[in-house]
Amino acid sequence: MTRPIITLTTDFGLSDHFVGVMKGVILGIQPAAQVIDISHGVEPYQIADGAFTIAEAYQYFPPKTIHVVVIDPGVGSARRPLLAEMAGQYFVAPDNGVLSMIFAREQPKVRHITNERYFLHPVSQTFHGRDVFSPVAAHLATGVKSAKFGKRIEDYIRASFDKPAQTGQHSWTGIILKADHFGNLATNFHIDQFPALRTHAFSLKVGPQSINRLALTFSECAPGELCAIVGSSGYVEVAASQGSAAERLGTGAGSPVELTIY
Amino acid sequence: MTRPIITLTTDFGLSDHFVGVMKGVILGIQPAAQVIDISHGVEPYQIADGAFTIAEAYQYFPPKTIHVVVIDPGVGSARRPLLAEMAGQYFVAPDNGVLSMIFAREQPKVRHITNERYFLHPVSQTFHGRDVFSPVAAHLATGVKSAKFGKRIEDYIRASFDKPAQTGQHSWTGIILKADHFGNLATNFHIDQFPALRTHAFSLKVGPQSINRLALTFSECAPGELCAIVGSSGYVEVAASQGSAAERLGTGAGSPVELTIY
Amino acid sequence: MTRPIITLTTDFGLSDHFVGVMKGVILGIQPAAQVIDISHGVEPYQIADGAFTIAEAYQYFPPKTIHVVVIDPGVGSARRPLLAEMAGQYFVAPDNGVLSMIFAREQPKVRHITNERYFLHPVSQTFHGRDVFSPVAAHLATGVKSAKFGKRIEDYIRASFDKPAQTGQHSWTGIILKADHFGNLATNFHIDQFPALRTHAFSLKVGPQSINRLALTFSECAPGELCAIVGSSGYVEVAASQGSAAERLGTGAGSPVELTIY
Repeated sequence: MTRPIITLTTDFGLSDHFVGVMKGVILGIQPAAQVIDISHGVEPYQIADGAFTIAEAYQYFPPKTIHVVVIDPGVGSARRPLLAEMAGQYFVAPDNGVLSMIFAREQPKVRHITNERYFLHPVSQTFHGRDVFSPVAAHLATGVKSAKFGKRIEDYIRASFDKPAQTGQHSWTGIILKADHFGNLATNFHIDQFPALRTHAFSLKVGPQSINRLALTFSECAPGELCAIVGSSGYVEVAASQGSAAERLGTGAGSPVELTIY
Repeated sequence: MTRPIITLTTDFGLSDHFVGVMKGVILGIQPAAQVIDISHGVEPYQIADGAFTIAEAYQYFPPKTIHVVVIDPGVGSARRPLLAEMAGQYFVAPDNGVLSMIFAREQPKVRHITNERYFLHPVSQTFHGRDVFSPVAAHLATGVKSAKFGKRIEDYIRASFDKPAQTGQHSWTGIILKADHFGNLATNFHIDQFPALRTHAFSLKVGPQSINRLALTFSECAPGELCAIVGSSGYVEVAASQGSAAERLGTGAGSPVELTIY
Repeated sequence: MTRPIITLTTDFGLSDHFVGVMKGVILGIQPAAQVIDISHGVEPYQIADGAFTIAEAYQYFPPKTIHVVVIDPGVGSARRPLLAEMAGQYFVAPDNGVLSMIFAREQPKVRHITNERYFLHPVSQTFHGRDVFSPVAAHLATGVKSAKFGKRIEDYIRASFDKPAQTGQHSWTGIILKADHFGNLATNFHIDQFPALRTHAFSLKVGPQSINRLALTFSECAPGELCAIVGSSGYVEVAASQGSAAERLGTGAGSPVELTIY
């Protein structure tokens, strides 16, 4: 008997009881669940950061994994809770675009979760991670069929965090998706969409500076030097080897990045 | 066969080996244990914060869960280690008031842990999380009966973190229990004890400012505005929607809060 | 059937998807694995901190535990991945000295991991935690024999983080191994090598100040006073009871410590 895997991705941080409570709720419903933290350090309320974090992680999990994603600035408002099936896995999240980067890559089947039988009652106005998303994931992990949770919908929110906007024949504006723990800045320029970065001269403007060189590895980049590098994700990152590019450039998630290819 | 759940709540943080070591000790004694972190981000040495954190979490865990709570500024002194049974669960913690908020709600049976057979030897002066609390919890999870650990006591410490002091006919002084990850300030004013907050004009003075309005949801509160809100716990929180009330008010755990109801 | 334990020690932090991805990779290969975090808060690129962290933790884990240690500033360069067997346990780590403190205590059998069959392909230049170390650990946990991963080597890197240098008849220079979550500074002076600290006058110079007294417990040390104390590890620590010695002294991992015994 395999133990069902439930992952958690939130902006709740780890200093409070919130994450522990979600795990308690899950284990109360499905004691065999194996609860795995992806990250609770998504920047508070930053949907793009959450979208990037789960999009980078899900593909490394086994089939039937259930991912709970709670970056939810609209909690308590009318935004809908979603259950999405795609890539052979399940995703439980608010309808605010946080699954967009996965929607763009996979064939999603999305449901609006409405069956309150699978909620924890009374449902609070402030903590749907506990009252809605965790119990739904746990019931799913006990074998409840997706269709029981609510009806299929098509008008769920899709944001295009992964598509830089073309601003000229050779220029694009993108964004920083995330400043990681090392201060590396993941941009939304993916090497598969911008292969010319490997072969052409370019200028990648981030904050006050331009980077003009794509390094192959961190060790190629002199300590403290600013380099562009293709991250493990395929997205171009700006890194200061053994230092924080985020600090040096005074920038972070959501800030613009300008690319010109010559 | 269910796997026994052991939760951990400490002020050890996550940058060190401390929490990992506790888990190693537990799994060495009871390999089937499922160890769940509630939080290791309790503010160092802040017993009120620890008391609030575990009190908010335990009720969401299944019967027979074993909670290990180590906020322990008196480690190495004569303070006693406790094993408490209440609410169908177990709690292993130092006798310093950290279980007070649960003692106040439940019918506790408390023992002074004295049976050194269940300790890890030699017992250090500085890390009872490893040498006393974790091994006791793990032995409990293997089926050792509570009575084996030590005798019942009644004179354990009860602090009243959850009771604001009445200072006038319509005024009370409370405290901030915790500044959470979002900078929301949880006070010890519980809506069940202060239902008039929903119906009467009031002034809640926190640091340099007064809040006069109880919002129903975060989304009702304009970005950056300071609002009082009933948290998922039932305690009144001061929140700055999509911002940090703790930063705006320059205050945190342990600071006083003055309430006047008109 | 026991569930194999795999521990993780990294400098990846918890704000990103990195650690979650490693767990996904492990569970995809060995679903029965019990993945335990030792710490992901090793100071970025600080091999001494990583060496200390894993050396303090491994001994508390059961036989056959598999420890994955990824503090890896040389990722993408020619540094070798290692599989070490010692103390009845397994260690998977880069060949950069991060296992040195354990090598010094145990009888290691070390292999250079070369069998790419056990890697995740394509192997990136930047994230061997995901592509090399985690899958090797997971395959080991499914029962693959050590010899399958690569040949024995003897020329792996041994650094001597745990040996202060003697600089005079009664004086030594050591280093701070780690500033822990409480701001306590763990030095590399071990009480077993310096028992005279218990019986003789001494001066321990850390940053701008000298400490002259070994306290027995934290509670012996007045709030805010700077004390030397024998940590739970046996190493002498500099602590400010209920305060941060690291902040008071403006120092941290890697900084020198001067000891004179009179």
